[in-house]
Amino acid sequence: MLNYRKDLEKMPSYDGTEKDYRIKVNANESTLNLPPLVEERVLNRLSYVAFNRYPNEEYDLLVEQIAKNFSVTKNQILLGGGSSEIIEKVFLAFGGEGRKVVYPQPSFSMYKIYARAAESQAFPFDLDENFDLNVDAFIKKVKDLRADLAVVCNPNNPTGNALTVAQVEEIAKNIDCAFLLDEAYVEFYGYSAVNLIKNYPNLIVARTFSKAYGMAAVRVGYMIAAEDVTKMINKTFMPYHMNTLTLATADIVYQMRDEFVSRIQMTVAERERMFERYQNLREIEVFPSQTNFLLIRYEKAAALQEYLDNLDIGVRYFSASAAGLKNCLRISIGTALENDEVFSAIKNFVEGK
Amino acid sequence: MLNYRKDLEKMPSYDGTEKDYRIKVNANESTLNLPPLVEERVLNRLSYVAFNRYPNEEYDLLVEQIAKNFSVTKNQILLGGGSSEIIEKVFLAFGGEGRKVVYPQPSFSMYKIYARAAESQAFPFDLDENFDLNVDAFIKKVKDLRADLAVVCNPNNPTGNALTVAQVEEIAKNIDCAFLLDEAYVEFYGYSAVNLIKNYPNLIVARTFSKAYGMAAVRVGYMIAAEDVTKMINKTFMPYHMNTLTLATADIVYQMRDEFVSRIQMTVAERERMFERYQNLREIEVFPSQTNFLLIRYEKAAALQEYLDNLDIGVRYFSASAAGLKNCLRISIGTALENDEVFSAIKNFVEGK
Repeated sequence: MLNYRKDLEKMPSYDGTEKDYRIKVNANESTLNLPPLVEERVLNRLSYVAFNRYPNEEYDLLVEQIAKNFSVTKNQILLGGGSSEIIEKVFLAFGGEGRKVVYPQPSFSMYKIYARAAESQAFPFDLDENFDLNVDAFIKKVKDLRADLAVVCNPNNPTGNALTVAQVEEIAKNIDCAFLLDEAYVEFYGYSAVNLIKNYPNLIVARTFSKAYGMAAVRVGYMIAAEDVTKMINKTFMPYHMNTLTLATADIVYQMRDEFVSRIQMTVAERERMFERYQNLREIEVFPSQTNFLLIRYEKAAALQEYLDNLDIGVRYFSASAAGLKNCLRISIGTALENDEVFSAIKNFVEGK
Repeated sequence: MLNYRKDLEKMPSYDGTEKDYRIKVNANESTLNLPPLVEERVLNRLSYVAFNRYPNEEYDLLVEQIAKNFSVTKNQILLGGGSSEIIEKVFLAFGGEGRKVVYPQPSFSMYKIYARAAESQAFPFDLDENFDLNVDAFIKKVKDLRADLAVVCNPNNPTGNALTVAQVEEIAKNIDCAFLLDEAYVEFYGYSAVNLIKNYPNLIVARTFSKAYGMAAVRVGYMIAAEDVTKMINKTFMPYHMNTLTLATADIVYQMRDEFVSRIQMTVAERERMFERYQNLREIEVFPSQTNFLLIRYEKAAALQEYLDNLDIGVRYFSASAAGLKNCLRISIGTALENDEVFSAIKNFVEGK
């Protein structure tokens, strides 16, 4: 009876709560809550919030800090509800009927959905068998299609590997359309392309507080781009789309971001240690990672996932339908104890113990 | 150079911070922060948040409470970032090229923007000189246009007046398209149309925590509709669009909503008291209100607003461009002291003292 938007029927819904695993390494979250000193200051800050007032200067205060850190202007920054919302809005801003968006696959599974929500045509570009991106071929595809938006996740989720900044520059330099670089995991890699923005006004970098800063609950991310690009993308955001609790929390966390350096280093060290351990498991293929997770491939991945689930360990399983990810599991890096327990369980399973 | 979405250029931007008035009665906020007992429990609840985890069961816990209160199923409720986001998404779900949306004017100024964001055609329907809605003519317009969405704000912002539930039912019964009822101010009126949903599956009711529950900072609203309608509108929301801090805060506030009854009653009593006082000011026309604000009309409204601004009192001025609101000011109800001070200032100005 009711006239829903064209093709709305085909959009998926996101419902239901997730199992609360004893060891939850399925969503690339930090397995640690905020550092105690940071949490204390966050809670203190929240006690000063005027709950009754619409968000006001809190947005600007956070933008100012981020701008200063990257030596860009305030007008080059936009905040969103996680980098998810940033990416959703960038897809929207360059999307619409007949518009084309190109992104590598396998990569972040939501790109397909954001393309559909924006009513654009999605053109996934296959990574090679090592999950590497053939940069020249990618550029050619973007140009041949006369795409409106190219998207690269760097380092890439869920494969873990990364392009060099020079490779990112190669893409930015050789395509004319908007180029969204999703740097959700960049803190675990160390090489951001933000500095390229001044030379390539088509480049838009999305960042998040959800991963390295352990703030997935709070939903805050940001984008950095040239001022005129930011100005246009800002038009897709409605007033008061960010709430004061989120903004105030992120403001404190960003002020205290040095407190996160040691845990980022710990995650990187653990990733390298676990990479070696998985490499020594003959039955398992493990892919090099520049992120806070490892991707492994194993013939009986589905059964392994079920086995781990029974041990109350949550890892991310990719069904055969996820292009290129057949028999793959993604395992976030947790504490050393968690990582060792997950590894032991996997070792027991694959060695048939 | 970059290919932005069609007509994105024409969308407005929302930037800049608002002046922090000594008496801020320009945005229909509560002028009181949360009741101390509620705030204490909210802050305590926030101290248990796992900042590092994606939002999980918190969404469902709040939905469950709301569903129970209205005796509807959980599948009839959706949460959003303020009723703003709910309304934005409803416009989107029934919008698109060639789609038509009808709403009264003057009313909530954002309807026009939401229509544009949804790429729909907007058809404002003029209220009469008393700001009353001619229900039959409104129904006729919706039917004649074969509109896809009809929207009514009840009680209406910024005029303050309300339709009876019988009038709302008259509309729901006689139109075939989706019918969004924006009940942002309904707690100050007392007559919600939520119970009509079971008989009119085209009816969608939007509610907010921003006004009566004094939670504008937190950005939380909800909609209630038939299950199949909710299911479709849910497809416009991306995963994790609500954050845990907001959900946990709203959960506590909703549990303790009895604590807000006395302040809602106080606001209503103050509104009536101030209505009479403004009525006694010969130079000023004041409109009856069922909300937490009063709309006044005064020949020198622009000068009056400037005068109040100089006294650090913020009221909402409607420029001549806002259809039907020429020379109108909207004044939110604050505490008795605030209301009297605003009144005295206005009285002094209009009496030339």
